[in-house]
Amino acid sequence: MAEAATRRRGRGGGGAARRAERTSARIEVARFIERNIPNYEILDDEAIAVIERNAETVLEEIGVNFVENPAALERWREAGADVQGERVHIPRGLARQLCATAPSQFTQVARNPEKSVEIGGRNLVLAPVYGPPFINDLDNVRRYATIEDFRNFVKLGYMSKWLHHSGGTVCEPTDVAVNKRHLDMLHAHMTLSDKPFMGSVTEPSRARDSVEMCEILFGPDFVQDNTVMTSLININSPLTFDATMMGALEVYAAANQAAIISPFIVGGAMAPVSVAGTLTQVLAEVMAGVAYSQLVRPGAPVIFGAFVTSIDMNSGAPTFGTPEAAQITYGAGQLARRLGLPFRSAGSFTGSKLADAQAAYETANSLNMGLLAGVNFMLHACGWMEGGLVASFRKFVMDADQLGALHKLAQGVPIDEESQAMDALREVGPGGHYLGCGHTQRNFKTAFWRSEIFDYKPYETWVEEGARDTRSYAWDRVTKLLGDYQQPDLDPGIAEALNDYIARKKAQMPDSFT
Amino acid sequence: MAEAATRRRGRGGGGAARRAERTSARIEVARFIERNIPNYEILDDEAIAVIERNAETVLEEIGVNFVENPAALERWREAGADVQGERVHIPRGLARQLCATAPSQFTQVARNPEKSVEIGGRNLVLAPVYGPPFINDLDNVRRYATIEDFRNFVKLGYMSKWLHHSGGTVCEPTDVAVNKRHLDMLHAHMTLSDKPFMGSVTEPSRARDSVEMCEILFGPDFVQDNTVMTSLININSPLTFDATMMGALEVYAAANQAAIISPFIVGGAMAPVSVAGTLTQVLAEVMAGVAYSQLVRPGAPVIFGAFVTSIDMNSGAPTFGTPEAAQITYGAGQLARRLGLPFRSAGSFTGSKLADAQAAYETANSLNMGLLAGVNFMLHACGWMEGGLVASFRKFVMDADQLGALHKLAQGVPIDEESQAMDALREVGPGGHYLGCGHTQRNFKTAFWRSEIFDYKPYETWVEEGARDTRSYAWDRVTKLLGDYQQPDLDPGIAEALNDYIARKKAQMPDSFT
Repeated sequence: MAEAATRRRGRGGGGAARRAERTSARIEVARFIERNIPNYEILDDEAIAVIERNAETVLEEIGVNFVENPAALERWREAGADVQGERVHIPRGLARQLCATAPSQFTQVARNPEKSVEIGGRNLVLAPVYGPPFINDLDNVRRYATIEDFRNFVKLGYMSKWLHHSGGTVCEPTDVAVNKRHLDMLHAHMTLSDKPFMGSVTEPSRARDSVEMCEILFGPDFVQDNTVMTSLININSPLTFDATMMGALEVYAAANQAAIISPFIVGGAMAPVSVAGTLTQVLAEVMAGVAYSQLVRPGAPVIFGAFVTSIDMNSGAPTFGTPEAAQITYGAGQLARRLGLPFRSAGSFTGSKLADAQAAYETANSLNMGLLAGVNFMLHACGWMEGGLVASFRKFVMDADQLGALHKLAQGVPIDEESQAMDALREVGPGGHYLGCGHTQRNFKTAFWRSEIFDYKPYETWVEEGARDTRSYAWDRVTKLLGDYQQPDLDPGIAEALNDYIARKKAQMPDSFT
Repeated sequence: MAEAATRRRGRGGGGAARRAERTSARIEVARFIERNIPNYEILDDEAIAVIERNAETVLEEIGVNFVENPAALERWREAGADVQGERVHIPRGLARQLCATAPSQFTQVARNPEKSVEIGGRNLVLAPVYGPPFINDLDNVRRYATIEDFRNFVKLGYMSKWLHHSGGTVCEPTDVAVNKRHLDMLHAHMTLSDKPFMGSVTEPSRARDSVEMCEILFGPDFVQDNTVMTSLININSPLTFDATMMGALEVYAAANQAAIISPFIVGGAMAPVSVAGTLTQVLAEVMAGVAYSQLVRPGAPVIFGAFVTSIDMNSGAPTFGTPEAAQITYGAGQLARRLGLPFRSAGSFTGSKLADAQAAYETANSLNMGLLAGVNFMLHACGWMEGGLVASFRKFVMDADQLGALHKLAQGVPIDEESQAMDALREVGPGGHYLGCGHTQRNFKTAFWRSEIFDYKPYETWVEEGARDTRSYAWDRVTKLLGDYQQPDLDPGIAEALNDYIARKKAQMPDSFT
């Protein structure tokens, strides 16, 4: 690996030259994907009917637990459910009926309105990795993540053309107290990026802080009328809704802010080992969760989530990019569309410890599947590593590069006269070549997606330059993007108000690291 | 990398233990894939109609060249084409009509009948890389391939559970004379494996040799009545059919042996830069080639081939696993099915020089696409590297491992009572886990596909074992498979007759290396 040399080169050129280059750097941003290709439907009508019927049976006969949440039990009782202790038995048809008030598509507004996203319909919004306590490969060391790492990921996300969303907990800033880190995380998303972002879900009070910070950023009236956050509400599979997550959901739904309601399933552990059984449980869980959001506020924007991996029955390790996860995701997409809900699934999943071939196979399997499964919101679309324990800088830019290929594939096949290229076929004819023909001259610049990272060099050049692999090239890209980063403008009054809010909040409570 | 140590460990244990292990090694082989999932159809009816109409226009108005092949021109003239010089203008509808006599599915018989394959319909047959002059990473050196390398690839193919076909020129044995190497290659496929294989296409005489060697292996009467080879006939895109390839096609079609009739397209060079334009040319070329095969012998088995990559317009390098190649392949699958022909496309394509993340992203993109595109015969399904210049031992086993995931995905979603797992959902209930429940106990062994190469270990174990990457693990697998290899039995009389045939043939001609 010739990284040291590369880094020197990347940082060379003198201060003035670097500043000039930075000033001229244009930050390209792609609009969210509007699919012009069909969804892939793996389940036939019979399978869908069986799964939907079984999910209703699960809700009615087995029921779901709403834990330590008397208000939720009361809401369910009023809605007509049979509540026994913390167990809620939902009569056949009730959950689906309650889900009907949830919108099939909604706008999440970004502070830069050009970067607002449409979630649902034929759209696909891409957001980065969420949740890892560790980071890797900024200095080629795996270690606990810090707020500085967090900020670097937000900067990378801002600089990544194919990423539409800044995400949420891109890594856990473990050097900040647990009860305060949501403030610093939101501050980073709000000030270092102008893309849409996610709110805190680790305590209902932190969800309220998230809403209040958005009221500073967007204005209180604006937040009442618009969705400015999409947050991740995990279901404690199987069939359990805990008070913390439900408390955050209640805050967000009441404030008309969006929530992804998402079973978190390692197949064989939190769901049956079969695809049909897992889909049944996923559908039951999401219907119960979405129905509950609509009991809190009819019309609150929600997303049908499905985080699904399988398990290695030899070691118990979760496995990623597997065929079973693909089957479940394709099927869950169909079930979500039949409920008329936006769908969240897939991502840059891998169990690998390095951004190596395993990581890329597993990730590519999931990214391609996510596009064809009709996913509307893809969390973890880049940067996920080691089963979600690690956020990787190199893999972030490698995956983000592949997201460009999804954009191109989603455009479908234009069939207009220029695309038919009959003039080119006539001009070139048998035995010729198309490199110089008029049609190629007119179209070559946009004809083919091109990686910003991959090696397309002749072998001899590649050897001369150190026979580098993708991880090495990815490092160049991380360095370049962080070097080129320029903070987007923010009204100084808003910036100051955010700082004041955070200082006041932090002063109100002692640090807690548990 | 801890490879040296691993190799020592792998070879340790003493001769007796090793022999015992080898004797007990069971070589598992999967049956070819019978898809139980739908194909992905990217083109709508209008796009198909436009492309089919334009392809007929190309055949009629632009025409195709059959170069240095008076007999072919005569066949076309008799069939009703307008032949001017070497240019054949095929009246609208004629090519499609001629294609109708080609079978939509055929059996390629292997010498071990359990390994015979069905090509066409909903089936997918997987064959290894074809054509590279170089090999890499057997000793971690990129160098010209030899017959010894060739034999090792055939052994790996034989040992690979998910590979149904031994392939053809798995690498070019450059240490054997050009005019004799087909004999040694066929001998390797026939004696070191019992899976089906491909014949030589580099000269019509070598195609005849291939048929004659098959007559020794299978018996002359058997070869007359059965298809025992599937060979690769490339079209010299755009729109040119050269005498060598057509000569080989003529030999195979006359002998009722199968041919893949395959445009070889680097988009932007050998076809227009647009997807619709490329599909038009692919369809026109395949229709002309298949029609010609049916003029030679109506009913001869053929495959609609499409080898398609795009080009990096900056460097001119071919690029792989791209979204444009995916769109073309999905579309070509639809066009092939409308012609009622088996379809060949996709593969373990990459431009990378190493089995790194780039290689895996590009390969996974193409493998997944190939499964969903309805490909019936996937040449290059494993081992392709560096734009096809290199056959890689490590990547061979890495890709071959991923082919297992395609098998599982293709099974679709069973919906029988056991798969519905309602007993498990009832047994476990809210808050439990499924690891020990009855349904899991009954099903966990076959529930999830598992890689034979990937790292699923805890982080600490992985670090202790040397923090190895996929390339390193792949080396273990190459070593193990070659170490476990046991030659399949072959009737000694047939083996001797093959040796005699080759010795006689080699004695008849001086070595040629050009």
